[in-house]
Amino acid sequence: MILALAGGVGGAKLASGLAALLPADELLVVVNTGDDFEHLGLRISPDLDTVMYWLAGRNDAERGWGLAGETWNFMDSLQTLGAPTWFRLGDRDLATHVERTRLLAAGEPLSAVTGYLCQRLGVTHRISPMTDGRVRTVIHTPDGQLEFQHYFVRLACRPPAIGIGFDGAAEAVPCPDFEAALSRPDLDAIVICPSNPILSIQPILELRGVRDRIRAHRAPVIAVSPIIAGHAVKGPAAKLLQELRHESSALEICRYYGDVVDGFVIDDSDRGLTDAIEACGARVCVAPILMKDSADRRRLAETVIGFAAATAASAGKR
Amino acid sequence: MILALAGGVGGAKLASGLAALLPADELLVVVNTGDDFEHLGLRISPDLDTVMYWLAGRNDAERGWGLAGETWNFMDSLQTLGAPTWFRLGDRDLATHVERTRLLAAGEPLSAVTGYLCQRLGVTHRISPMTDGRVRTVIHTPDGQLEFQHYFVRLACRPPAIGIGFDGAAEAVPCPDFEAALSRPDLDAIVICPSNPILSIQPILELRGVRDRIRAHRAPVIAVSPIIAGHAVKGPAAKLLQELRHESSALEICRYYGDVVDGFVIDDSDRGLTDAIEACGARVCVAPILMKDSADRRRLAETVIGFAAATAASAGKR
Repeated sequence: MILALAGGVGGAKLASGLAALLPADELLVVVNTGDDFEHLGLRISPDLDTVMYWLAGRNDAERGWGLAGETWNFMDSLQTLGAPTWFRLGDRDLATHVERTRLLAAGEPLSAVTGYLCQRLGVTHRISPMTDGRVRTVIHTPDGQLEFQHYFVRLACRPPAIGIGFDGAAEAVPCPDFEAALSRPDLDAIVICPSNPILSIQPILELRGVRDRIRAHRAPVIAVSPIIAGHAVKGPAAKLLQELRHESSALEICRYYGDVVDGFVIDDSDRGLTDAIEACGARVCVAPILMKDSADRRRLAETVIGFAAATAASAGKR
Repeated sequence: MILALAGGVGGAKLASGLAALLPADELLVVVNTGDDFEHLGLRISPDLDTVMYWLAGRNDAERGWGLAGETWNFMDSLQTLGAPTWFRLGDRDLATHVERTRLLAAGEPLSAVTGYLCQRLGVTHRISPMTDGRVRTVIHTPDGQLEFQHYFVRLACRPPAIGIGFDGAAEAVPCPDFEAALSRPDLDAIVICPSNPILSIQPILELRGVRDRIRAHRAPVIAVSPIIAGHAVKGPAAKLLQELRHESSALEICRYYGDVVDGFVIDDSDRGLTDAIEACGARVCVAPILMKDSADRRRLAETVIGFAAATAASAGKR
């Protein structure tokens, strides 16, 4: 079984590649919920929805997030009413938020709600929020703290970031499926998807005990770089890394993950970084990692699985 | 100034006729909120919305309720998710419920929220909920009590009604604008719109002190019959009247309102009931009262205003 850690679109793409290869009971995708927030009285889980919609085959491929065939009449009317419209909620997508909010209010934990929504959307592989607890990513700026979606969407990442926090992470425990997967000695791999390492993966690693348990796990931990030739494939990774005084490079991502990662998958165009990454103590796999279509996603998933097996078979994890 | 009491579509139609004739500060439409309910975590006020959409000119004329140009993708997705879909919420209409719920949760009273929504929708005349308190219409059936929308929409009025209640009405007070209007000695008329007398008007009359204050008010109280030739123009009025052992007739509506009403407007086709209604102590105005278009609505409003003036000028209210 493979445990995949994912955030937004990059993570969703690799997760859908893994899902195309693996039987339903051999994959668990654990998703960042540090980006979750309450908006218009609704509980919004952007990363969970992105992964869920991709695995359901209902995602809007062009926009990356949200549902295919979406309409925007709710937003249009919301604007007429003078309500906040900076966070775009499609008419179809809105049903997910309303139903999630309703089930949470009825006392269901987020993991159970996610399982139920997945089942209704025809997702056969398991998707879990990283925790049923409350973790909220906050961005520190010179003008004070910003809730993540206010920084990310409302202000379009314009404020300079001088720090980042994950409120509640130290007290939050992994959700039941994540906990069970971490406890399985027979995991074939822990895959860190090509998601933003700071915004999407770090919140997961910061949960109580998680970083240490992943570091100590027998399974090889394989990360796929979200940076190709110095550029983030999507999203604010590069800007944020620079502001937080990291280089925007695959090597820097490897340094960022440190000894959590056993093997690192980088793009062909970053081949020149191989020696430097190996010097950090990680094995390197060079492959085309840009996922433009389902064939790319499946091929990268195959690469990751093969690389994990090779890493496990090598002289030992580290 | 005219104070109009209204419920759903029939009330909204006459209210829009009155609004077409009267300046903004010479009309207050007070709307039943006994039909309000909480659904999918949202606060829904069906009658308020119907009146608001009609006065905004945004109503769907064919369906009667909801917004013109509505789409249903939210409902479609809700069905996929297995969530309750028996109460139809259009994509555009949903913005009203989400924003109302959000403002109520922020501590605004319903009357202020309604005023704000009206302003945003371009409604210049005042529309008020009957109360900022909580009143809930319940239908008693042989199998127990039903919340109103469950009876009305989910079960399509199929269960036989053996009684009706207005939970909270005795403790609820009129909202500020309604209170102020009731206290004005210079009201030109109190108009009971052709809404369901039991479901739409009675909840208003049941509010603490309201029936007595309307009965004692100097202004003529003019009711327009919602029954034409024995049939309800729309909705379950006739069935409910019969089950609650009232005849379905304009005369019976007049008896139902009793001494609250000074003048009664009935349809040409019910001319034969004139003597019987006058025998109950009310003046009668016979006119075409079916409102098929805006000209009908305006003409009926003119009729009502003229009849109110004639009633006021006659020997005294009663």
